[in-house]
Amino acid sequence: MTTLVLPQPYLLFLGDATVLGVAKTALGLKDWAPERCIGEFSVPEATITAGLPWMRPAQARDAGARSLLIGVANAGGFVAPNWIPALVEALEAGLDIVSGMHMRLAAVPELKSTAERCQRRLIDVRTPPANIPVATGLKRSGKRLLAVGTDCALGKKYTALAIARSFEARGINVDFRATGQTGIMLAGRGIAMDAVISDFEAGAAELLSPDAAADHWDVIEGQGSLFHPAYAAVSMGLLHGSQPDVIVVCHEAGRTSMLAWPDFALPTLEETIDLNLRIGRRTNPRIRCAGISLNTSHLSEEAARDLMAQESARLKLSVADPMRGGPQFERLLDACLADW
Amino acid sequence: MTTLVLPQPYLLFLGDATVLGVAKTALGLKDWAPERCIGEFSVPEATITAGLPWMRPAQARDAGARSLLIGVANAGGFVAPNWIPALVEALEAGLDIVSGMHMRLAAVPELKSTAERCQRRLIDVRTPPANIPVATGLKRSGKRLLAVGTDCALGKKYTALAIARSFEARGINVDFRATGQTGIMLAGRGIAMDAVISDFEAGAAELLSPDAAADHWDVIEGQGSLFHPAYAAVSMGLLHGSQPDVIVVCHEAGRTSMLAWPDFALPTLEETIDLNLRIGRRTNPRIRCAGISLNTSHLSEEAARDLMAQESARLKLSVADPMRGGPQFERLLDACLADW
Repeated sequence: MTTLVLPQPYLLFLGDATVLGVAKTALGLKDWAPERCIGEFSVPEATITAGLPWMRPAQARDAGARSLLIGVANAGGFVAPNWIPALVEALEAGLDIVSGMHMRLAAVPELKSTAERCQRRLIDVRTPPANIPVATGLKRSGKRLLAVGTDCALGKKYTALAIARSFEARGINVDFRATGQTGIMLAGRGIAMDAVISDFEAGAAELLSPDAAADHWDVIEGQGSLFHPAYAAVSMGLLHGSQPDVIVVCHEAGRTSMLAWPDFALPTLEETIDLNLRIGRRTNPRIRCAGISLNTSHLSEEAARDLMAQESARLKLSVADPMRGGPQFERLLDACLADW
Repeated sequence: MTTLVLPQPYLLFLGDATVLGVAKTALGLKDWAPERCIGEFSVPEATITAGLPWMRPAQARDAGARSLLIGVANAGGFVAPNWIPALVEALEAGLDIVSGMHMRLAAVPELKSTAERCQRRLIDVRTPPANIPVATGLKRSGKRLLAVGTDCALGKKYTALAIARSFEARGINVDFRATGQTGIMLAGRGIAMDAVISDFEAGAAELLSPDAAADHWDVIEGQGSLFHPAYAAVSMGLLHGSQPDVIVVCHEAGRTSMLAWPDFALPTLEETIDLNLRIGRRTNPRIRCAGISLNTSHLSEEAARDLMAQESARLKLSVADPMRGGPQFERLLDACLADW
């Protein structure tokens, strides 16, 4: 009973992609986890590259690759027929296959039979581990930080990644804990929290950041929002089970309603802090908010700096955009680590 | 895409039970849904009865039964080998089998093959319907009441059942909406909310109480508690997706810590009301608390009456024990229906 661990490094598979947009997963991996990527592979119809050396599976295997990772998405989230010979070649070369697509790999008969014959694994990152226990609520040792949010898709994953890297740069013993498929591919391990059965949601979060040394930090990728009309159950279980000592609230500057739910106003930052602390206190009475991670990607450097200063003064909290870094982000990191 | 609907009426199966305690499900059905129970059936080793006419499956089928319902639980939650001939007899007599056990019926090869041969269904009540959609958050028509709680296992199901019956007795157009296995068996339909994948928890709750006439009430069985360290994700999704107009907070008199979680103090009634209203407001701004359902089963009649009066004065809300009924319960019903 453990979190999913992916065989690495990866050979990134770009399929038959002809536009960069569909290869988001591969590009994210190359940017955020280059040390896990040996090369790229694609079928002849493909016209794009992730900028890594192109190699066949057998070559990649010789160079150390342990899996082929499907780094491309098509509209239906399915294995395209013209990918199958390439995927079979990977299995035959001794690579496992890693996928975050909706369609399960084993649902393709040719992949299923080849994997069985070659004794390779077909790994669907969306599938949580079996036999997740019910949460115990018992306090675990070590420190934990959870990135929470006013909404989905505004930077919780990259906030957690950036904080984990910066902690590491400061010499802190830290693990990034991935809770979604892209995060799992980046980290090479994790649990797809949104795919866990509700009764075991908090239990899965407990499994994800186990007991650790007193000075060890788990920096946990958040999911959804307690205010989300569809996904709050995921956020609730993750918050209870993570037992965070520190939360960082993620928000996108200027977003006023829930993404794709225009009838639902975004909660204020104050409401978001307050509700997360109130609920989080149930499993960790010492929980506190260290500050705000503000996604300012659509603002100019100057407008971003002004807004962060303004919000910081208003909330009396550190406000930073981890993608911009700078002294604001260093202050946010200081606030995360204060008191320990 | 719909909630699970069970074939009825049932022939209750008591297995080889020799103590009444293990036949809780059958006894609950006989008490709360006698109109759905044609008779009882058991293997020769059984020594108990639910008080219904004993009949063989073929007889029950002739009398109108549509399924054999396993109304008995053993420690492991599994199909005992000495039940199998009886279950095969039921399938061959034209009955489906309904089970709330942990073990899936189709995991018993003899049941699987017999069901296929006889074209009968093996229905695991714990299995939620396939293809539950993501919640939309769109406000649905009709009125909804949700029984919430300070903890698990303190009367949410029976509170919702009692309120639904009393509404019906007052001539109100009402449906009891079951969210757990026993409730589903009693109602003949529902969704096992704790078995739904977290991402779809609120969506399942939306499915459970669809659009209805403006004067129709759905009285929804609650699950868990927002304060439960393991199960709050279930309560969260159910609250958001149910969009209740009214909550009734269920509590057991004298319970001070979470059942089987002794390190977690029970929340106060005020905290429970406040957090449920705060979160429920997200999908229904008109949500209000009508009062408290107090489980006083271990108190004397007099002590119960005194405590209810005391709590009612303190909270300025109706407080009643639905199992005792009386004027207190009538006042709680009035409060539920006020303003409509």
